[in-house]
Amino acid sequence: MKTYLECIPCFMQQAYRTARIATDDEKKIKEVLTVVGEMIKSIPMENTPPETGNIIYQKIREITEIHDPYKEIKKANIKEALSLYPELKQKVMKSADPLLTAIRIAIAGNVIDLGVNKNFNIVDDLKTILKQDFAIFDYEAFKNQLNNAKSILYLGDNAGESVFDKILIEELGKPVTYAVREIPVINDCIIDDAIASGLDKVAKLISSGSTAPATILSLCNENFIEKFNNADLVISKGQGNYEGLSQVKRSVFFMLKAKCPVIANNLNVKENDIVLKSINLN
Amino acid sequence: MKTYLECIPCFMQQAYRTARIATDDEKKIKEVLTVVGEMIKSIPMENTPPETGNIIYQKIREITEIHDPYKEIKKANIKEALSLYPELKQKVMKSADPLLTAIRIAIAGNVIDLGVNKNFNIVDDLKTILKQDFAIFDYEAFKNQLNNAKSILYLGDNAGESVFDKILIEELGKPVTYAVREIPVINDCIIDDAIASGLDKVAKLISSGSTAPATILSLCNENFIEKFNNADLVISKGQGNYEGLSQVKRSVFFMLKAKCPVIANNLNVKENDIVLKSINLN
Repeated sequence: MKTYLECIPCFMQQAYRTARIATDDEKKIKEVLTVVGEMIKSIPMENTPPETGNIIYQKIREITEIHDPYKEIKKANIKEALSLYPELKQKVMKSADPLLTAIRIAIAGNVIDLGVNKNFNIVDDLKTILKQDFAIFDYEAFKNQLNNAKSILYLGDNAGESVFDKILIEELGKPVTYAVREIPVINDCIIDDAIASGLDKVAKLISSGSTAPATILSLCNENFIEKFNNADLVISKGQGNYEGLSQVKRSVFFMLKAKCPVIANNLNVKENDIVLKSINLN
Repeated sequence: MKTYLECIPCFMQQAYRTARIATDDEKKIKEVLTVVGEMIKSIPMENTPPETGNIIYQKIREITEIHDPYKEIKKANIKEALSLYPELKQKVMKSADPLLTAIRIAIAGNVIDLGVNKNFNIVDDLKTILKQDFAIFDYEAFKNQLNNAKSILYLGDNAGESVFDKILIEELGKPVTYAVREIPVINDCIIDDAIASGLDKVAKLISSGSTAPATILSLCNENFIEKFNNADLVISKGQGNYEGLSQVKRSVFFMLKAKCPVIANNLNVKENDIVLKSINLN
């Protein structure tokens, strides 16, 4: 997905929020805002937003000298998600369609996104999303591809959401590789977060190599690219991964909640809609 | 009020929104964002936010070549407010405390602020604000100063809100001068808007001379400054005027709804609180 003009104030807002979490030093926060402001002229609008995000979050790390500003927040989100895990497992087990309920839960986890949302209430969002109609619902195609799949590549998004991903992975019944970011960026899941979420028990964990808040193939490592090209089924969670991969050539199933107007417009859905969208179906 | 770091992403958001309303030309909108981005380094944080707003909205006018992007929106807001006027007059007449009800209505009108709010529903906000407790309530002092006043200077804020101001002015029972901005800036009230709101029937209309979305004394004309210094009572509507005047030496009564976290923090109230605040009471 290309960058829209509306993304630019959002970059500034994200830069402010992350710098504020990283440091109390007002001079450093002003420097972050100054540097992002000076970048605007040269932002390539044909690039995806997380490619610019990659540069912005790198600048924030350099200026604040804080490698992982969301570390404690991620821990707290994983802890909260783990506390909900037993109840959610019950919901899946009692469901008439356990796979679909697990998909809904995995999408509900996607609200734990500190790039877009300042505030969210995971318990409230779960209630809504467990009942909400899908705006795009390529479920039959998903089940078909899942039935025929021998290998699944699952692209993680945020820490905390990762616990809800575990619930879905447990319903897939196939070998899953779960890919995370190479380094901390916003509250995205890295290897340590995936392990803290218990994902090492149900999937092979790999780093995509991406330092952006998204799967950007040009930033990914060889091992990931090999898996991405050859997996029978690719599940992509969240907005960032959609932004990065919406134009790729292979079949991908996107699961996300449209949390900003730009993504909603791009998908031709409304803000807060939930989506199970297939591209390049064979 | 000084500029807080949190104001900077808000400047960018406002610049985007106004440029988007002014033009469909993506190049011009990108230029606006670029110019505002490049300004960040030199924003004087000790200045009030609307002093920077003054420069930003000037740049938007220059780049888009649109003098009054909110013209049609202002007309629509005044029209909607006028349609509510008879019902609101009834509410005031039936009230146990007509002056207080008129103050509440005038504050409710302050939600018609397109600098801060993308979306508002004036009818819903009226319902809330007519019942809401004041977070700061210097009403006794206000009534005292009003009783002794021979001249009142009333500082208008947004077009549409101006109709609600008329309702309050009709309850004041004293000669009122109503001051508006010199030129169109956001959806702030200018002379034409004040006349369309019927304010010429109940007050003497003047321009403050300010081109900023606020009363910034250093930008005001001599006539206004003379009135500001000598009025027995000054009523200041809205956030912008508060930002511009919170440090002045004379007695001022501020009426506003705290619509952003920065203003709320500065006033030591919560977001969405309503305020009747006196400064420098004799």
